[in-house]
Amino acid sequence: MDAVVDSIVASVEEAAASAGASMGDIRSVGIGSPGPVDPESGTVIFAPNLMWHSVPIVQMLTEILDLPVCLENDANVAGLGEYRFGAGKGSKNMVYITVSTGVGGGLILGGKIHAGSFGMAGEVGHMTIVNDGPLCGCGNQGCLEALAAGPAIARKAQACILHGEDTIMKDMVGGCVENITAKTVGEAAARGDIPAREIIYKTGEYLGIGVANLINVINPDTIVIGGGVSNMGELLLTPLRRAAERRAIKAAFEKVRIVKAELASEAGLVGAVCLALGQV
Amino acid sequence: MDAVVDSIVASVEEAAASAGASMGDIRSVGIGSPGPVDPESGTVIFAPNLMWHSVPIVQMLTEILDLPVCLENDANVAGLGEYRFGAGKGSKNMVYITVSTGVGGGLILGGKIHAGSFGMAGEVGHMTIVNDGPLCGCGNQGCLEALAAGPAIARKAQACILHGEDTIMKDMVGGCVENITAKTVGEAAARGDIPAREIIYKTGEYLGIGVANLINVINPDTIVIGGGVSNMGELLLTPLRRAAERRAIKAAFEKVRIVKAELASEAGLVGAVCLALGQV
Repeated sequence: MDAVVDSIVASVEEAAASAGASMGDIRSVGIGSPGPVDPESGTVIFAPNLMWHSVPIVQMLTEILDLPVCLENDANVAGLGEYRFGAGKGSKNMVYITVSTGVGGGLILGGKIHAGSFGMAGEVGHMTIVNDGPLCGCGNQGCLEALAAGPAIARKAQACILHGEDTIMKDMVGGCVENITAKTVGEAAARGDIPAREIIYKTGEYLGIGVANLINVINPDTIVIGGGVSNMGELLLTPLRRAAERRAIKAAFEKVRIVKAELASEAGLVGAVCLALGQV
Repeated sequence: MDAVVDSIVASVEEAAASAGASMGDIRSVGIGSPGPVDPESGTVIFAPNLMWHSVPIVQMLTEILDLPVCLENDANVAGLGEYRFGAGKGSKNMVYITVSTGVGGGLILGGKIHAGSFGMAGEVGHMTIVNDGPLCGCGNQGCLEALAAGPAIARKAQACILHGEDTIMKDMVGGCVENITAKTVGEAAARGDIPAREIIYKTGEYLGIGVANLINVINPDTIVIGGGVSNMGELLLTPLRRAAERRAIKAAFEKVRIVKAELASEAGLVGAVCLALGQV
């Protein structure tokens, strides 16, 4: 825990230095943390990859930095970044979906992060899309994440090679099928590889079902799709929009913009700055 | 349109008379309208059963009644009623789900109706639950409404009789299978009929998948289940909770109360009063 805190403090100092500023010039600090947080008490409830439970990170950093510190979930913060400075600019109710090694999300409703009653809202990757679908890391079956995140895409490409389908993906990884990633599939698809395109099409359809559910429940004006997998662009977004159109309430679908994120991997940083600005 | 407006005016006069009050004593009027509305402009965007499109109902009634009039969607208003005076009292973020001839819903987030960007939020009945499931009235397949509303329950009971299963439901409707309703199924189940219990169990499971999706996306502290079908009580709620537990993020499920509505068919009326009170 100390190593992580030290590393955060060092990054604050580094940011100040690279801006030619002193620590005294910094007005506030914003943090996006993976997993559920309690923004009010400034506590990380649970951070699976750090093995953190109930860590009062805001208090710990405030004591060291003597600055206002604010905390939110990382996907919520990335959503806030896209809302304020990216693809969601000007929207009123926005859903941010990030598709990479997992599928996460953040809801910006009426201009504010909707964190839910216990800081856990926006877990769009764990909507059930296929009842009896593949097992998900969360213990459920057929979650959007188990069907459409990077690992699921890679797994499908590996299976298609093992089934002897005609694809350039095998050569792209020098025959080492286990080295195939979602990026390989995206590149193969961009070069016209049919099995790769089919995998991405199906992935887009699953995402479209999730997007339709979100349109029906939240009625947003903007849905922003980010994360590494979204770099597949229209190959992914076209089947996504088509499935969403087929499944969402017609009038609600007609009004929503479904767009690619603009801030790429910077979304979280920009959003954490927005969070900090709210404290100034 | 005039007949509906006249009927609303008459019901306002009737309400005043039955309270021993005069029209001058009425401070404001609240309306819950089926389908999407624009609360800000006071317009019914679409009311399928009335065949209304873009009707400025608030302006029409204000001119006749000379009173402040406010408008919301009917399920949102029912949700507001349960939130303020029913099963959702004291909650912060609440999802209301009504299961009757359709499946509708309303989101009360941070104490306020979340109507979405275009007045269409809360259409929880049109989340896709089974990809290739039965056709829904909305044009999609496998919507929660097509699987778990009253007509779906009745249809399953009819099919089970036609398949020759051993059930008391056939005798309960004097052999007229087409007269079976969800109520028949509920009564048969209460009397221990196995096929009826299985139908309700399965219905509860479908609802539980939808509830799990809502827990994961919204992270509410309270989910209120209303509508005629919810009168089946624990026969429905037990499998619903079990499926939601299996499919929702564990930490989010553990914190949410899933409870039966308390205001029954009065929820909409009570909620419309809450809406009107907001105008006083």
